[in-house]
Amino acid sequence: MSDLLWQKPGVSVDARIQKFLAGDDVILDREFFLHDIAASKAHAEGLQHIGILSADELGGLLRELDVLAADFSSGVFVLDERFEDCHSAIESRLTERLGDAGRKIHTGRSRNDQILVATRLWLKEKLDQVATLSREIARVALQRAEAEKSLPLPGYTHIQRAVVSSAGMWWAGWAEAFIDNAVRAGDTRRLIDANPLGTAAGYGVNLPLDREHTTQALAFARLQVSPIYAQLSRGKFEMAALEALGGATLDLRRLAWDLSLFTSAEFGFVALPAQYTTGSSIMPNKRNPDVIELMRATHASVAAARTEIEQLLSLPSGYHRDLQSSKGAIFHGFGRGLSALELLPDLLANLEWRQDRMRAAMDSGMYATDVAVEQAAAGVPFRDAYRAAAASADQAGSGRTPESSLAARVSPGAAADLRLDLLHARWESLGQM
Amino acid sequence: MSDLLWQKPGVSVDARIQKFLAGDDVILDREFFLHDIAASKAHAEGLQHIGILSADELGGLLRELDVLAADFSSGVFVLDERFEDCHSAIESRLTERLGDAGRKIHTGRSRNDQILVATRLWLKEKLDQVATLSREIARVALQRAEAEKSLPLPGYTHIQRAVVSSAGMWWAGWAEAFIDNAVRAGDTRRLIDANPLGTAAGYGVNLPLDREHTTQALAFARLQVSPIYAQLSRGKFEMAALEALGGATLDLRRLAWDLSLFTSAEFGFVALPAQYTTGSSIMPNKRNPDVIELMRATHASVAAARTEIEQLLSLPSGYHRDLQSSKGAIFHGFGRGLSALELLPDLLANLEWRQDRMRAAMDSGMYATDVAVEQAAAGVPFRDAYRAAAASADQAGSGRTPESSLAARVSPGAAADLRLDLLHARWESLGQM
Amino acid sequence: MSDLLWQKPGVSVDARIQKFLAGDDVILDREFFLHDIAASKAHAEGLQHIGILSADELGGLLRELDVLAADFSSGVFVLDERFEDCHSAIESRLTERLGDAGRKIHTGRSRNDQILVATRLWLKEKLDQVATLSREIARVALQRAEAEKSLPLPGYTHIQRAVVSSAGMWWAGWAEAFIDNAVRAGDTRRLIDANPLGTAAGYGVNLPLDREHTTQALAFARLQVSPIYAQLSRGKFEMAALEALGGATLDLRRLAWDLSLFTSAEFGFVALPAQYTTGSSIMPNKRNPDVIELMRATHASVAAARTEIEQLLSLPSGYHRDLQSSKGAIFHGFGRGLSALELLPDLLANLEWRQDRMRAAMDSGMYATDVAVEQAAAGVPFRDAYRAAAASADQAGSGRTPESSLAARVSPGAAADLRLDLLHARWESLGQM
Amino acid sequence: MSDLLWQKPGVSVDARIQKFLAGDDVILDREFFLHDIAASKAHAEGLQHIGILSADELGGLLRELDVLAADFSSGVFVLDERFEDCHSAIESRLTERLGDAGRKIHTGRSRNDQILVATRLWLKEKLDQVATLSREIARVALQRAEAEKSLPLPGYTHIQRAVVSSAGMWWAGWAEAFIDNAVRAGDTRRLIDANPLGTAAGYGVNLPLDREHTTQALAFARLQVSPIYAQLSRGKFEMAALEALGGATLDLRRLAWDLSLFTSAEFGFVALPAQYTTGSSIMPNKRNPDVIELMRATHASVAAARTEIEQLLSLPSGYHRDLQSSKGAIFHGFGRGLSALELLPDLLANLEWRQDRMRAAMDSGMYATDVAVEQAAAGVPFRDAYRAAAASADQAGSGRTPESSLAARVSPGAAADLRLDLLHARWESLGQM
Repeated sequence: MSDLLWQKPGVSVDARIQKFLAGDDVILDREFFLHDIAASKAHAEGLQHIGILSADELGGLLRELDVLAADFSSGVFVLDERFEDCHSAIESRLTERLGDAGRKIHTGRSRNDQILVATRLWLKEKLDQVATLSREIARVALQRAEAEKSLPLPGYTHIQRAVVSSAGMWWAGWAEAFIDNAVRAGDTRRLIDANPLGTAAGYGVNLPLDREHTTQALAFARLQVSPIYAQLSRGKFEMAALEALGGATLDLRRLAWDLSLFTSAEFGFVALPAQYTTGSSIMPNKRNPDVIELMRATHASVAAARTEIEQLLSLPSGYHRDLQSSKGAIFHGFGRGLSALELLPDLLANLEWRQDRMRAAMDSGMYATDVAVEQAAAGVPFRDAYRAAAASADQAGSGRTPESSLAARVSPGAAADLRLDLLHARWESLGQM
Repeated sequence: MSDLLWQKPGVSVDARIQKFLAGDDVILDREFFLHDIAASKAHAEGLQHIGILSADELGGLLRELDVLAADFSSGVFVLDERFEDCHSAIESRLTERLGDAGRKIHTGRSRNDQILVATRLWLKEKLDQVATLSREIARVALQRAEAEKSLPLPGYTHIQRAVVSSAGMWWAGWAEAFIDNAVRAGDTRRLIDANPLGTAAGYGVNLPLDREHTTQALAFARLQVSPIYAQLSRGKFEMAALEALGGATLDLRRLAWDLSLFTSAEFGFVALPAQYTTGSSIMPNKRNPDVIELMRATHASVAAARTEIEQLLSLPSGYHRDLQSSKGAIFHGFGRGLSALELLPDLLANLEWRQDRMRAAMDSGMYATDVAVEQAAAGVPFRDAYRAAAASADQAGSGRTPESSLAARVSPGAAADLRLDLLHARWESLGQM
Repeated sequence: MSDLLWQKPGVSVDARIQKFLAGDDVILDREFFLHDIAASKAHAEGLQHIGILSADELGGLLRELDVLAADFSSGVFVLDERFEDCHSAIESRLTERLGDAGRKIHTGRSRNDQILVATRLWLKEKLDQVATLSREIARVALQRAEAEKSLPLPGYTHIQRAVVSSAGMWWAGWAEAFIDNAVRAGDTRRLIDANPLGTAAGYGVNLPLDREHTTQALAFARLQVSPIYAQLSRGKFEMAALEALGGATLDLRRLAWDLSLFTSAEFGFVALPAQYTTGSSIMPNKRNPDVIELMRATHASVAAARTEIEQLLSLPSGYHRDLQSSKGAIFHGFGRGLSALELLPDLLANLEWRQDRMRAAMDSGMYATDVAVEQAAAGVPFRDAYRAAAASADQAGSGRTPESSLAARVSPGAAADLRLDLLHARWESLGQM
Repeated sequence: MSDLLWQKPGVSVDARIQKFLAGDDVILDREFFLHDIAASKAHAEGLQHIGILSADELGGLLRELDVLAADFSSGVFVLDERFEDCHSAIESRLTERLGDAGRKIHTGRSRNDQILVATRLWLKEKLDQVATLSREIARVALQRAEAEKSLPLPGYTHIQRAVVSSAGMWWAGWAEAFIDNAVRAGDTRRLIDANPLGTAAGYGVNLPLDREHTTQALAFARLQVSPIYAQLSRGKFEMAALEALGGATLDLRRLAWDLSLFTSAEFGFVALPAQYTTGSSIMPNKRNPDVIELMRATHASVAAARTEIEQLLSLPSGYHRDLQSSKGAIFHGFGRGLSALELLPDLLANLEWRQDRMRAAMDSGMYATDVAVEQAAAGVPFRDAYRAAAASADQAGSGRTPESSLAARVSPGAAADLRLDLLHARWESLGQM
């Protein structure tokens, strides 16, 4: 490893301990490298505003930061174990190329606010992706809800046949779910959209840093005012972001469960395109819906990431090295979460209903609620109508069809009155958030 | 137990199994009883609008629901193991008092949407309390930040002395934290402010239920459109609410850690009024800060509540009995969470700084950063200034005082420029959310 | 509340704060009351051995502790909010009845080791119950495995039809699972079977307490030697116990999932006796397997209990009030866990297979693996045999029956060679642990 | 990627979906590669015993498996994205080198039991390491307990000064803790020491596999009899192993907390060798105990790993692709956990007490319990002695020294009677487990 920024003369370094301290930190930092460069540029500009850097020095720094970003993106510069972390790597490169200007870049900042601002920028991007993907998923679901509003689908509670339902109702449910998920991602993005750069090690510095400039340059909505709170928000904001993602992956888990049952031979309601399935190493007959299962498994990774951070956050205020572990956690959670959500729009657009199997699963008892409610509408007290219908549930379907049941399901939101206009209006408003 | 609503003739009931099914459900339902009555009134009004109930029947139901609410509040009516749950208890009482009108009340609804609407009303109240308490905590913190802006307090990172800080900075940090917590509680309240009543068992009914009326009567901001999503949001919304609460209790955990250290003999920065401490059964000398410790422990209960719900939610769409366990979980989480937050404003208002101890803890090295930054401002590249200051950190305090250090801490948000106006403006806007 | 043991003159008590401190602690203590009495008797005997109590004083204490235990069990004595906790309640009663002897009972002990020893005794009982119930579940499963070894049952992977399996194989799987669960409960019981009484507040006392006597009198296997470790084991041992329970409830969750699918109309392999099902408040046709669903939900409560404790345990050594929350957690986790496991033996003994449905679900592809392996046995490289069998999987069942497939399944543990003798031998050895 | 083992002709593969399915699975498989080779050798031997392979074929396979293991260890063979997983990679290489013998190796096995057996072997190794490291930590602690039994150290409860304690007591506490941790790791190893190889896809095969041979060859203590249970134990055994590790990392978290406080300027009881500390990028004066903080953070990673697996395990019996995520989880948890535990013995051996600071922290009140107990020993009822001592706690230290307090602390396990012989005897017995 190159020299440590903070190394004091005469203190020896133990390789095994350095390895433990480093962990895979510098490798993880690859995710943050470009964000750190963006923040370094804004910081340098701010330093020039208050006279710490000359215009020439600033020019050199901005140029070299751009070159470094390009070298990183092209693979010419590799961030690896030679460096303690991305922050040291950047400062070291600038010093190598620019001399004193490089040695000045760290004026008035600490790795503590550097990592905060890089993480913040990264999380905002990821929450944007959650919002965008949720909106796209809702779009597909709304389209299919409209197209398949009259397609009968058995409705279940307790995985037991309950009443006749429709594909339209099923799609509308997921549409409303993912509209909410987009709203939540947006709310969370707004909550964390505050600039921590310029809070240094958590106590500010004796320089009139131009935090308004860095806020604007990095496109933050507001200043994170308090340096103490900037540190307190480490982990807290990561958790909020993971929880917003978790709202979506939790819905995905339930959606995947539906599809897992629907693609079983016993239900048989859904046919998945072959590319979503895999085979077995021993059983020649198998086509397994592995994509659905890995989607179902995704929330576990998001939950694990949140656990990892939450367990760390039993600490006094101020920075503690414990917090380093929060970095890998968000990469793991968002990595898994987003890669699953990304496949979902196409999967939903491509899945095919097997209408014969759906129709065959409608049994007579599934009309019993219709019968009881009709009787109630005709003046029989519902509890009496219920008892009568229960006694003859097996004959409830007589003279009824899935279509007739759906046509009569007129309560707002139900099959005959889906109110997709309301959902569509909320969906439209997402674009303006 | 009274007769089960759904009991079929000739099916025997096993007492041990019924006990397992019931759990402590009906006792927990006491929390929801008044919400269920409010929703029942709105539902009855809606039924009258569509001709299921006559005006007289509605009048009787509204009257008896009010009487029952009063009886419950006064203790004349006790919800206990005689009933399967609060829903059955209410229907049974109405039938007993009103005959057929009672037997009609359940028309077009299911216990599935009854529990949803009662829970939703309850969660909205609790999130209001989180927001209100967070706002109150921020108010106290802002006041003390203003009053104590010049009071020196040692600043720590890694629980190691770092730089001179101030009580004002410390308070401003908690103020900004709890402003965010109030914002998040408000966002979450808006997310869940949707009416599930009228979605029945998750598939709607063959009646044109007046869901607009119930939405308005129960003061929901919007309709939860999809019956499928109404069921999918069971647990999902509870988790979102607990996560919003958890943002606050996580901050509380870190605040309590600060106070736990600050009230130790070794730090000695804070004196707690005696009523916040307790003694030992064996050690005559002890005054322990138990209140602070139980505050620190609070987040564990919130996290446990979230775990209990999250672990349940690996299910297909539709209602499943598994979800019953989510009820006790939210009572536990919010019960613990709110009771801790409620004590916090007074505790914060009452804690006293021990200025002698704070001042005594400022050592010379805590000025070394000031020295290095001053040198940087004078043109020395920071990395060089840092090395020089490191070499003579022990003498950094020479000629400096905590006051002089704080007076020079001019970066925005730091001691000499707290920007409390920005925080105060955000605090004010909370009242208008 | 009665006087606080540790109350100092002149310190006022704030009712709201006392309520927060108390929580529902004293109500929870009802679970521990008899264990605390048992430990108090052993402690008193030990005090008499070292001359702190006279024989007469000891006699009085033992008698009054027995009376109190009887009064508690009969309901004559009620442990409620009048008391701070069970420890204070017991000391207070003894003092009231016996005067100085009561005031002597607390010599050399602290509530810190009192709660430890009561919890330890309670956990040992609960782990015994986990072991006993696991053994009983395994017994039923072994019996049915033997009886139904030739009953064909479709075998699934990915909830997709895989190969022919048998009820015997299914039962043997659960038998081996619950044998392991019993082993683990026993291991955990042994791990925690150490006496913490006599460690006082975590630092011992200046008295030669007779800890050998209390160890023996309370039937502990060994002394928990270190007072520091006695405190460190608070929470740690609770977690270990919950994790042992969790091994069983996790298996229960998967078993309940099997039954939830098997009792669906689509699978239809299992008929549950009516007493395990419930009806719907609105749908007259429903019989829902609620017992199975609440069993599936049980692990969530165990996981929540563990989370609650784990989140607390980020603390220095020594007692902290935070630990109080661990008490409710174990009651919740074991309460739910054991009540579900208790119903399982009967449920398993009573469930009925629907052989027609099981047979109907065997499709031709489920024999393709048999075909490929037969070819491999005849000398065709398996990978070639696999490809050939894949190409004609639809015809694989030609000339084959479930019975012929099972009869040829001779790998050890498979249908034709279940090796129940091995499982039975391990089951027998559980009785001797 | 090379051809997929199970690929059917004419089914196209979508690159984006394959990437999602693969994840980082094949990279993670590097951990298992050598275990899979060992199991493949045993499986091949078993196949030869039952006539599937000739002696020549077996010879070729064993030779090539050894070559492949050597190539992998030397870096000549790299397991990377060219392969679907380690299982496919091995089979593919054998086929390339040996032709038909390679195509025969998969006879009678499935990737389902391959991954089980590789994981099982890996977990056994890791639990051995937990046991060995725990034993080593206990050894250091016992040595220092013996050496420092008379060194006074303030004893705390609630992070408040409580009574005089000793370094000997502190060390003995950690010794007993890690003896228990070693015991638990051993118990868990025994629980999972069962051979799943030969259970194929979870239903056995129509071949008389020689499972006794593979059990013996791979040094398993017993056969995992049931193929159904072999699949059910996926995740269950991983969790048990992580929970055993978690017992140790939870203790480490509390130990690190002690050291974090003790190395603060305010406590100042412990001096850490410089190599365990790091500096700050901005504050020239800092030496931070980062190693201790990362040790404290370790349990969070173990808890996260357990969460990831537990959240997956809400599934019916049989294999599901969801389980793939359990692999990365154990690597993460054990990777972090073991790397922290590995540094602990040296850190404990090297930390130095600062006796002056420890002595200075003993205040007079810390003798009040001694006073009260002495009075109790002299016949004053303890509750009266307590009140008297409380009234004059400030003078309790008069005429007393830390040494005199420790010398009188004669309760078993306390400073004057540490009973290290008991701990040493348990420690010795660990070697024979």
